[in-house]
Amino acid sequence: MFITVEGGEGAGKTSAIRLMEQLLQQAGYEVVVTREPGGIPIAEQIREVILDSRNTEMDGRTEALLYAAARRQHLVQKVIPALEKGHAVLCDRFIDSSLAYQGFAREIGMDEVFEINRFAIHDTMPDLTLFLDVSPEVGLERIRANSGREVNRLDMESLAFHERVRSGYLLLLDKYPERIVRIDASRSEAEVTGSLSAVLIERLKLQMADGNIGQQNRV
Amino acid sequence: MFITVEGGEGAGKTSAIRLMEQLLQQAGYEVVVTREPGGIPIAEQIREVILDSRNTEMDGRTEALLYAAARRQHLVQKVIPALEKGHAVLCDRFIDSSLAYQGFAREIGMDEVFEINRFAIHDTMPDLTLFLDVSPEVGLERIRANSGREVNRLDMESLAFHERVRSGYLLLLDKYPERIVRIDASRSEAEVTGSLSAVLIERLKLQMADGNIGQQNRV
Repeated sequence: MFITVEGGEGAGKTSAIRLMEQLLQQAGYEVVVTREPGGIPIAEQIREVILDSRNTEMDGRTEALLYAAARRQHLVQKVIPALEKGHAVLCDRFIDSSLAYQGFAREIGMDEVFEINRFAIHDTMPDLTLFLDVSPEVGLERIRANSGREVNRLDMESLAFHERVRSGYLLLLDKYPERIVRIDASRSEAEVTGSLSAVLIERLKLQMADGNIGQQNRV
Repeated sequence: MFITVEGGEGAGKTSAIRLMEQLLQQAGYEVVVTREPGGIPIAEQIREVILDSRNTEMDGRTEALLYAAARRQHLVQKVIPALEKGHAVLCDRFIDSSLAYQGFAREIGMDEVFEINRFAIHDTMPDLTLFLDVSPEVGLERIRANSGREVNRLDMESLAFHERVRSGYLLLLDKYPERIVRIDASRSEAEVTGSLSAVLIERLKLQMADGNIGQQNRV
């Protein structure tokens, strides 16, 4: 079972992954928790090129291709081998981040960014994607509360950008209603935990009904 | 005017580019001669990842995405600015190399490799592509003659690969008869020079008829 977790800053992805890891373990899965570039040396090298502060001239499409390349390598070396062993893989961000951030918010175009990611991931789409939805204001406020610093002009500027990211995610939710589940992450932690558990348990029941639980190979 | 030169090893691309540079200059063009990664630091960094000998686990699709990323950056920073100034750009290998080598010979699929390259180059396709065609045996023999070494087992193994590369180019020739011109590069240098000159002069006449010669902007 391949599960990805998506959402903006301050949405609570880390807590959600921790909770799901426990639930999946209780269901008998060996769980691999990962995030790109996932410690894969080739993907780390690609990420260094993307993040190199000297690379101010990097074009948006170059960046999108580099993210897709790093995704491919992480998938081939870490995600697919784990899935083939029947493990559950929990990945913090995946294709939808590229679609929402680069495709929609950076205006390269979701369909175009989807095409290069389809080349990268082939048919390994997530079985389930949890979209933790908070308004950028709430997410920003949470980060502020955790770090104790004031909201500055740059944060306000980026607010418009994060609004576009959220719109991108909502479009994806509309496009993939079977795969993506929206969790209202503006609620209390207890309420979010309740929703996440309910969604995951429902999926595990479906898997059990299909005879696909635990150590069995999913393919 | 954007001209690319393609072909296998030992086909004579370097000589062909030198000849065309002179002809284009005589026609009043400022000429930019380049090859990927073309001295663009971001593209050089990407190339380092591709060529790093430690990266033995690199997947073919990761590599194809990295080539497309480097191509994009070289195009944006060097090729397009030159074309916008009305210069002629002569590029040693471009999209067709990826299609023939990775798409066809490495069996990733030409259409799939085309898609990610279309994302990378958008609508900046070459105006003219010269495919210098020699059989791999002849190309290999030329390299051998120049370096003085014997043909070894690895060369023979790679012969089958270079046969597939040639088949890839022939498929592209069939697909893009308007853009790609095949030059029989197995003939003498004088004959090849004659053919190249004829093709280029014909294209320059067409450009003149369209009023697109010299320093005028092509867009």
